[in-house]
Amino acid sequence: MIPNEKEWSKSEKKIARQAYKAAYNRECKAIMEEVRKMAAETRDSTDLWRLHDYLTEKRKETDEKYDYRYSVLRFVFARLIYEGWMHQEDLEGISEDKLQEILESAEFYAGL
Amino acid sequence: MIPNEKEWSKSEKKIARQAYKAAYNRECKAIMEEVRKMAAETRDSTDLWRLHDYLTEKRKETDEKYDYRYSVLRFVFARLIYEGWMHQEDLEGISEDKLQEILESAEFYAGL
Repeated sequence: MIPNEKEWSKSEKKIARQAYKAAYNRECKAIMEEVRKMAAETRDSTDLWRLHDYLTEKRKETDEKYDYRYSVLRFVFARLIYEGWMHQEDLEGISEDKLQEILESAEFYAGL
Repeated sequence: MIPNEKEWSKSEKKIARQAYKAAYNRECKAIMEEVRKMAAETRDSTDLWRLHDYLTEKRKETDEKYDYRYSVLRFVFARLIYEGWMHQEDLEGISEDKLQEILESAEFYAGL
């Protein structure tokens, strides 16, 4: 278990924060690409509001998903790895037990 | 005054409906163009959510503005003319008194 902030060393916190930001930026970049594609294909008001619906959904989803509380970080990172926004290499430098717990949780997502 | 539906003849209603649709399509087209421009210039998550905010605002604004109840049509059309989404020519065929009332209301908007 990784229950709280105290279990993360200063250097691990730095790595975790960077990995988290990188994942967020990757996901936002993918959303941007989809928005550009949808915007280019927009022909009428229905398409336009569909684009708005897509962005509303993605904003809500990312707001909920990107939660940096240490009490939930294991599950957040596991989901990000499972979804491909975070890479295992991004977490290089955190303790082996934390990494294993994250990867095990990611496998749990894969099995859902 | 143009208080209700009964004062609009069948042919006037057809003209009004077409002018209304044309205005809505023009405004949506302008929003689409702005969205394409913003999407092309989007560099980070801040830009992305700003684009979402813009679309949210425009959707709310158009939802409120495009109101086809005959009791408010004079003011709706006046605003659309003032804002440039509706053209006077679009209303060719409706009675002179209705047109004058709409144009006078549009001038009222211009004076605000």
